Amino acid sequence: MATDVKAPGTAARSAPFRYRITVAYDGSQYAGWQVQPAHMTVQQRLEEVLASLSGETVKIHGSGRTDQGVHAEGQVAHFDLMKRWQPPVLHKGLNALLPADIRVLRVARAKADFHARRSARKKEYRYIIWNGEVMDPCRRFYATHVRRPLDVKVMQAAAHELVGRHDFAAFTANPNRIVESTVRKIEYLNVRKQGPLITVTVASEGFLYKMVRSICGLLIRVGEGAVTPQEVREILASRLRTARVPTAPPEGLSLWRVWY
Amino acid sequence: MATDVKAPGTAARSAPFRYRITVAYDGSQYAGWQVQPAHMTVQQRLEEVLASLSGETVKIHGSGRTDQGVHAEGQVAHFDLMKRWQPPVLHKGLNALLPADIRVLRVARAKADFHARRSARKKEYRYIIWNGEVMDPCRRFYATHVRRPLDVKVMQAAAHELVGRHDFAAFTANPNRIVESTVRKIEYLNVRKQGPLITVTVASEGFLYKMVRSICGLLIRVGEGAVTPQEVREILASRLRTARVPTAPPEGLSLWRVWY
Repeated sequence: MATDVKAPGTAARSAPFRYRITVAYDGSQYAGWQVQPAHMTVQQRLEEVLASLSGETVKIHGSGRTDQGVHAEGQVAHFDLMKRWQPPVLHKGLNALLPADIRVLRVARAKADFHARRSARKKEYRYIIWNGEVMDPCRRFYATHVRRPLDVKVMQAAAHELVGRHDFAAFTANPNRIVESTVRKIEYLNVRKQGPLITVTVASEGFLYKMVRSICGLLIRVGEGAVTPQEVREILASRLRTARVPTAPPEGLSLWRVWY
Repeated sequence: MATDVKAPGTAARSAPFRYRITVAYDGSQYAGWQVQPAHMTVQQRLEEVLASLSGETVKIHGSGRTDQGVHAEGQVAHFDLMKRWQPPVLHKGLNALLPADIRVLRVARAKADFHARRSARKKEYRYIIWNGEVMDPCRRFYATHVRRPLDVKVMQAAAHELVGRHDFAAFTANPNRIVESTVRKIEYLNVRKQGPLITVTVASEGFLYKMVRSICGLLIRVGEGAVTPQEVREILASRLRTARVPTAPPEGLSLWRVWY
């Protein structure tokens, strides 16, 4: 019947198509992921490029924010377009228009109920420390320089104290503003050493604001001998954010992977 | 006796002190190592900083040149100063004045006959390839992007053809200008794969101009299936530089270590 034959344009306008993208970025030149006034962000750059490519005004939803200077190897985001695109065409078009510090790794069609933040089951972050007297100049934007030799064994013992379900109020930057629960479950928190590089890998179903950098800041203090694993347990139990938990610098951090 | 007691200034002025430094640099912003007019180079930056620190006009001698955009994890250089410095003081002073993309890793006193280039026994270079559809944005200045999947096994077979003492005239950029012999001995040439990263490691007592990038350029062609290991043997035997041997881009290359 004639009413079942829709012009592509008409069909598109009545129900938009949802797309899911995986994005890697060098966060050095951006004021983080989320759009904000007067500073360029990764989300804003992606929205600009997507608008210029598609001719549509698009809002992009990320799996979560990353702070200024933080990188991503596998940020995931979704957006809706009225036009139906072949994912490879959208993929090539985006990378052709994006600057070299933002790369789209994958583009896929997504179901209408897929939501990059709300559908996420688990996230992994990696934090890279260059532990040596002099910083490697080629890693200065991608690792945090810690001069004092770190004791990785004691960092591993302290990390062990944080794995599992706990109230992480002592590990978030502004607990007063948070209405929701500060209980989170850390699935794994590993510390590995390869020469002067120390990599902290942490995964959870969800993280509080600045939680990863707070954990890494404290683990660095532990590695320096300033805090013991027993004190880490006490700080966790206190549920109180104090100066004993520093926020580690952003350049060492990367949002590694999001699971759905 | 009074004539044996020299004022420090007098002694210094009559015979300068030689220093040996190990330097790492991110070559992205430099027109290579060697001083040249109208472009900033690593050598020039080091000479400027050393002059401003010591008050002496100093020429720095590197173990060899690196091209524009090439990095170093372990370049070695020497220079003479009339003043006697404690190496740690010189080390701290240099790093305090140098930009973050040049770092002095070590400073040591050297004998008067030590020469960074002429005394070098062996050098190792590493060439890093990012072999994936989309470039990792955080490696864009430190690895060469090769999109087509590379066959590492066949690259290793081709590398094997080049190990040992050969005439490498086919692997240098301007053999006509070279008066000296183009015979060199490659001690090892290894190709390793770790996920999307492929690392070529090559060591020799000495390299010809653009020899490492020519070898890597050909190995990439081999990995893409455009050249066979047998053809590599023929190209080597031809001693003729042709377009079949491309010069691989500079960003993947780093001068890794110099032995004395």
